[in-house]
Amino acid sequence: MHTHKEEVVLHVHASNDNLAEHVQEILKEQNIYAVNVMGAPGVGKTTTLENIIKHLKGAVYVLEGDIESDIDTQRLCKQNIAARQINTFGACHLDAPLIHKAVHDWQFEKDGFLFIENVGNLVCPAEFSIGENIKMLIVSVTDGSDKPYKYPLAFEKAGIIILNKIDLLPHVDFDEKFFMDGVRHLNKDVPVFKVCGKTGEGFQAVAEFLKKIKSCKL
Amino acid sequence: MHTHKEEVVLHVHASNDNLAEHVQEILKEQNIYAVNVMGAPGVGKTTTLENIIKHLKGAVYVLEGDIESDIDTQRLCKQNIAARQINTFGACHLDAPLIHKAVHDWQFEKDGFLFIENVGNLVCPAEFSIGENIKMLIVSVTDGSDKPYKYPLAFEKAGIIILNKIDLLPHVDFDEKFFMDGVRHLNKDVPVFKVCGKTGEGFQAVAEFLKKIKSCKL
Repeated sequence: MHTHKEEVVLHVHASNDNLAEHVQEILKEQNIYAVNVMGAPGVGKTTTLENIIKHLKGAVYVLEGDIESDIDTQRLCKQNIAARQINTFGACHLDAPLIHKAVHDWQFEKDGFLFIENVGNLVCPAEFSIGENIKMLIVSVTDGSDKPYKYPLAFEKAGIIILNKIDLLPHVDFDEKFFMDGVRHLNKDVPVFKVCGKTGEGFQAVAEFLKKIKSCKL
Repeated sequence: MHTHKEEVVLHVHASNDNLAEHVQEILKEQNIYAVNVMGAPGVGKTTTLENIIKHLKGAVYVLEGDIESDIDTQRLCKQNIAARQINTFGACHLDAPLIHKAVHDWQFEKDGFLFIENVGNLVCPAEFSIGENIKMLIVSVTDGSDKPYKYPLAFEKAGIIILNKIDLLPHVDFDEKFFMDGVRHLNKDVPVFKVCGKTGEGFQAVAEFLKKIKSCKL
């Protein structure tokens, strides 16, 4: 038997998942491949998007999720990237209703990518499907190598992992073997790309992977 | 009128706050000053505690909150720090019931500090009182200077802010003025201490502040 609180939580998840499926249908009809971009605050989610987008041809759209502010959307729009803002005003993750509202009358060009930058949070976003085709998890070497052990769900659900800020490796204690052991224990086959948001190193391979997986999955 | 979901949320917060008051009474009776240590994953919460504790005389206790694992508790126990683990198994923050369960038959020596390291998350922990006397927010220069704008609640509620990893300032783009403007907009008087977890720089001042505020508040 579930308690009252548990019942409400289950109900919230079930209705979220139904709407997430609907979002996926809307996007599939338009040949839009959606990437749910997750990561703790400050790991470089927006910088990662800027770098990947440079290597993608064709239509690219971005939804920026933040509790408050539209700093990142402004930053992307200045680079002529088609970005829109979602503010959750307190909520710690994006959910399918928010994405449904955002995409449901957005006229996408056919055949493109939609990157949805989730709220900076290594915990809650991993629990909610938002109609994405893939979850991209971004982590930074400055945050330490123990993250897979402490925040397993995000690593378990990731379809691609980006290890950012590798330019800072000489200045921090990051045990790559310990990190990768933790990742592999949770997620046997997920590709892990080492990148540097500052210099752009490593992002071409990420873009190639996304193009390939998009063409396989759509 | 509140929706059903909102009613449940309000109920959860009200019963949490009642129990948080009870936790505070238990701790006050034993002259224990409780610090709720908040911050995103990887900002250096445990390292900060290790460094502060070196400068504190008398009894010090630590409760380590993690979704999974007891890596940090093991690390502290090896240094003969009286640390205990709380695992939330999925939950994104500590709450008063978890702390109540942990402290309610813990025999503290009189007159000491209890540091409660929350789950690594810059969003949810700020919403829940756990019976603390003060919230200590830890942020890192590697995470960028826009954090107060994007995650305002944690900054608004902080009684002390620790800006960590200042040794990496030469290698990252951190706009201190922009950061401090954001902090001051939300929290006029909160003291902000710049520290380096790696070298121990700046922690003596943090410890002095905590000793002073403890003697004023208890």
